[in-house]
Amino acid sequence: MKKSSLGHQTTIDYYDCDPTIINTADSIKKILEKAANIMNLTIVNTTIHEFSPIGVSGVIVIKESHIAIHTWPEHKYVALDFFTCNHSSDLKEGILWIKEQFKAERIEKNTSHRGFLAKMKS
Amino acid sequence: MKKSSLGHQTTIDYYDCDPTIINTADSIKKILEKAANIMNLTIVNTTIHEFSPIGVSGVIVIKESHIAIHTWPEHKYVALDFFTCNHSSDLKEGILWIKEQFKAERIEKNTSHRGFLAKMKS
Repeated sequence: MKKSSLGHQTTIDYYDCDPTIINTADSIKKILEKAANIMNLTIVNTTIHEFSPIGVSGVIVIKESHIAIHTWPEHKYVALDFFTCNHSSDLKEGILWIKEQFKAERIEKNTSHRGFLAKMKS
Repeated sequence: MKKSSLGHQTTIDYYDCDPTIINTADSIKKILEKAANIMNLTIVNTTIHEFSPIGVSGVIVIKESHIAIHTWPEHKYVALDFFTCNHSSDLKEGILWIKEQFKAERIEKNTSHRGFLAKMKS
């Protein structure tokens, strides 16, 4: 059944990652930008911020909406979000490719839909 | 019961907003930055992108994680996300203040928790 929603939100939790890889802005930037390319998402702007003493936060504004990341190297954990307004975006391949890059042992993925047209006034 | 999670994600859908207010990068930037201030969130970086012919996408990287927004003026709809790593962040006042600024008639709010420490290896 086709859903009449405007936005599609996919959240992925990566557990037991390599703490070194997820603790530098450079490696996060490279991985996310290549993943966006794999997923055919068009990058508008990238902001990656390295926290002191540990952790990285970043957001890529994409034409189709955004990608956000927060890493906790001390817990080997990464929270990654994709928000897209394009029904046809296939994120699966990119999500698994990122898992390999982070050397994550386990992931949890959830998808929700946002902005239901049926609830809007005409 | 205290939850042993690292991240706290709050998504808010604003329906029946004023389409003019939610269609300019300037007004979105001013409203979100003031809301961040009301919520005691510390801004690291703001990126707001105005789409042609319509709509705004933006992200504020905050010290506590991020705020993301996507607007559909043609549907009077706004999707807003807060991701925080601070248990004590009280978003309620800011969320209602934003509702007034957008002149939204209705909102839907959902909260989820991310990165459960119990699932992590020691």
